[in-house]
Amino acid sequence: MAQTNPLPVPTGPWKSVRSRGRENRQPPLCHPPVLEWLRSSLRMAPLPRELISAGITVYDQENFQGKRMEFTSACPNIMECNFDNIRSLKVECGAWVGYEHTGFCGQQFTLERGEYPRWDAWSGSNAYHIERLMSFRPICSANHKESKITIFEKDNFIGRQWELSDDYPSLQAMGWANNEVGSMKIQCGAWVCYQYPGYRGYQYVLEADHHGGDYKHWREWGSHAQTCQIQSIRRIQQ
Amino acid sequence: MAQTNPLPVPTGPWKSVRSRGRENRQPPLCHPPVLEWLRSSLRMAPLPRELISAGITVYDQENFQGKRMEFTSACPNIMECNFDNIRSLKVECGAWVGYEHTGFCGQQFTLERGEYPRWDAWSGSNAYHIERLMSFRPICSANHKESKITIFEKDNFIGRQWELSDDYPSLQAMGWANNEVGSMKIQCGAWVCYQYPGYRGYQYVLEADHHGGDYKHWREWGSHAQTCQIQSIRRIQQ
Repeated sequence: MAQTNPLPVPTGPWKSVRSRGRENRQPPLCHPPVLEWLRSSLRMAPLPRELISAGITVYDQENFQGKRMEFTSACPNIMECNFDNIRSLKVECGAWVGYEHTGFCGQQFTLERGEYPRWDAWSGSNAYHIERLMSFRPICSANHKESKITIFEKDNFIGRQWELSDDYPSLQAMGWANNEVGSMKIQCGAWVCYQYPGYRGYQYVLEADHHGGDYKHWREWGSHAQTCQIQSIRRIQQ
Repeated sequence: MAQTNPLPVPTGPWKSVRSRGRENRQPPLCHPPVLEWLRSSLRMAPLPRELISAGITVYDQENFQGKRMEFTSACPNIMECNFDNIRSLKVECGAWVGYEHTGFCGQQFTLERGEYPRWDAWSGSNAYHIERLMSFRPICSANHKESKITIFEKDNFIGRQWELSDDYPSLQAMGWANNEVGSMKIQCGAWVCYQYPGYRGYQYVLEADHHGGDYKHWREWGSHAQTCQIQSIRRIQQ
């Protein structure tokens, strides 16, 4: 049965009810949570779809079965909503990133609009078999039309560099010398980098509005990063 | 230890030694096999890299270990090269498609330039867990710069249609109504369609020079196709 969204309370720098007491580590959603809170408080009609910039429905069983819950903003811990795990989901609006662990930690899973009936629809790495998705957040800077990233051969923005504004399922096919990238600067939009060609393996979501867009070492790509191996890169859809 | 390539013999419509006695179902490679055969026969120097349009090295163990073999043209049955399976591979040149079974049947795996140390680097669907790669061939029509595909709502090219020339990790995010595509026409290049958003799940490689570019029903997408569910589409890199 559908449950209502755990709505964010618009006090101070917008913090979710669910994230109260812990640092909200992603940029605030500007309008939709406030509008949704007003709508809910005043018992108004549902928000027009065009005013909602992000929407996701999660289920505790595969194939969109079991308990379900809708969100329009970040959820740092699905257990606080009485879920033991997320086993299927639908992205209705915007681009999201899911995480293996609570608090936006562990493996990252890019989630764009569409249906994900099982964990393997979002998981990118079978070598490190993960069937847990415990937190998620919208990717505010995702912008398919204008995206720009510069990749560097070495860490600290040193060595050969290459500016990209398109999707590259094989960096080596486009002339990059090897299977590694030392550091990256995101000038515009949000990107996802993958361990293997063809958008497979570990995923790293990198955004213009995180770290000022600067990722000077592979350790900054995510808590699950273990090497600087990257073989494909693409823009994240909004 | 490196072994020599099982070279195609340029007789009739170019057929590989390995495919003699069975129908060669993919378009012939035009120049490289002939050049390579001449080079080998006349004990000439290795071919200049720019004359080779496709090259792949396969290994019978993970992490590029064990027996290895290099190819510049299609291999319909890796067992005829005394491999029981392929467990890692490197694509040095061109774009390829690998198959679960011999004779270019079963699940399809898009292979672009780069390194694939384990089966999960190329496999797209964990739900139908596959650790077999028994045949492969180059994708001759892959052309990243000029690619065009028209997707249709229903089979037989009926219903709403949409012409694409870019990569789409979520068709629904771009306005496509649901998670299905009825039929497709490839006007230019080679494309790979995926069951789930973000280039995950079953892969279907579709080419302008197969079926005249017309795929009028999901059964024509591949012997592994079971439904018309498609949620992301991208060009194949050359």
